[in-house]
Amino acid sequence: MSTPHPHPHLNRWIVEPGKTPGLGVLDPASIDDAPGDKEITNAACDELVEQLRDLQIRLWAERSQSLLVVLQAMDAGGKDGTIRKVFTGVNPQGVHITSFKAPTSDELARDFLWRVHARVPAKGEIGVFNRSHYEDVLIARVDGLVAEPTWRRRYGFIRDWEEMLVSEGTTIVKLFLHISRDEQARRLQARLEDPTKRWKFEPADMDARSKWDDYQRAYEEAIAETATQQAPWYVIPSDRKWYRNWAVLKVLTSTLEMMDPQFPSS
Amino acid sequence: MSTPHPHPHLNRWIVEPGKTPGLGVLDPASIDDAPGDKEITNAACDELVEQLRDLQIRLWAERSQSLLVVLQAMDAGGKDGTIRKVFTGVNPQGVHITSFKAPTSDELARDFLWRVHARVPAKGEIGVFNRSHYEDVLIARVDGLVAEPTWRRRYGFIRDWEEMLVSEGTTIVKLFLHISRDEQARRLQARLEDPTKRWKFEPADMDARSKWDDYQRAYEEAIAETATQQAPWYVIPSDRKWYRNWAVLKVLTSTLEMMDPQFPSS
Repeated sequence: MSTPHPHPHLNRWIVEPGKTPGLGVLDPASIDDAPGDKEITNAACDELVEQLRDLQIRLWAERSQSLLVVLQAMDAGGKDGTIRKVFTGVNPQGVHITSFKAPTSDELARDFLWRVHARVPAKGEIGVFNRSHYEDVLIARVDGLVAEPTWRRRYGFIRDWEEMLVSEGTTIVKLFLHISRDEQARRLQARLEDPTKRWKFEPADMDARSKWDDYQRAYEEAIAETATQQAPWYVIPSDRKWYRNWAVLKVLTSTLEMMDPQFPSS
Repeated sequence: MSTPHPHPHLNRWIVEPGKTPGLGVLDPASIDDAPGDKEITNAACDELVEQLRDLQIRLWAERSQSLLVVLQAMDAGGKDGTIRKVFTGVNPQGVHITSFKAPTSDELARDFLWRVHARVPAKGEIGVFNRSHYEDVLIARVDGLVAEPTWRRRYGFIRDWEEMLVSEGTTIVKLFLHISRDEQARRLQARLEDPTKRWKFEPADMDARSKWDDYQRAYEEAIAETATQQAPWYVIPSDRKWYRNWAVLKVLTSTLEMMDPQFPSS
């Protein structure tokens, strides 16, 4: 796959197929190429949300292709905040957010792709996965929920399945919100101290925190194994929320521009 | 894949991976290795249904693996009759039959595997697909519903998806009920003449009949492209219904015996 990526301005975040992202050296506090300081960048975000809204209307009217956005991050990495900031203001009729929690017994009784496949976007829709099938090679690995040969085989199954979706008309964008261990500590602390955030705290957060290194390694490998030309991974520096929001909006609007949805002519 | 198939007595029907089944030379009226004449074979079927019932109870109690049976045939090939004969008498709680008709608009708005993936059996269950994702490389090809590169790519996606299901705990058996053009004519004629069968007749039956050769070629290629060690195809001579029923029961009971489901020890 030597074709250059079609969005040169997204190259700073994209994971090149075959390369390991090297999370340890990528700076989670980067504000590389931001349009300006926090205030200026937030203003740029407002414009990008408008643009996303317009592009979504065209996608919905065209109804011939769909966009699947996979959001992954460490606990407190900012998945919920990103969804709120990016998609508030976009017509919810054509945007479906699915949050995947611990699998139900019905889900555990099937293969790991069953529950995510059921929620892929229809033509005309944007589907957002808040956590996803990637948990089945992340927590499943770190917590030893399945044997190593099982989660290792899943990398290939994920590549195959995503390639099938792309071939059948879905564009896939995978986003890893990259935060530092210190930033995670600050956010978890805030959850404990701020009564408006305490509801988000779960004891499992501290458990996952103690496995920080294991998770980082699992993420690096999962991303390296599944970063393809057709279903790219982006590593988004996410210690600064304003930069993260801008970067995610940039990836989504650029991707939709490349999809170039058109109003039907008749 | 040079491993011999684990059921030597099924070798007469199995399609060897990498081989084209040659439907034109396989005799649809074969009664090869039948236990006896029609009467004797029907009695053998009754015993096999008993055996299937017992194996299904163990599968249901064990709840750690599942069986997916894919049934394909030309029109009037005997899919409905096979299901009635084979599964009547088995506890319907653990057996789910899904008949796939022309796709709905919701189904057409997703990839071709979406609707079948939703209906795969849970652990402990037997799932039967009356028609399946194979229609998306059969009627989709013969009637030109999608472009050739699209249906050609689907062979690989089908192999990948079935391999994933097998890896995650599902045993797959694919059955092509092979009838002759003359037998099809007799059965369609009977549908027109017999008031208890007329409800089954559809004008599309005659249309598909005129495309007999196209369908046979499409079946040969689809079977050759997707006959794998892990998800084998069986071509069942089906002109004689009593032989067909016996052969299908033989394949299913032998497969379940190989799966060897056990009652939980505690």
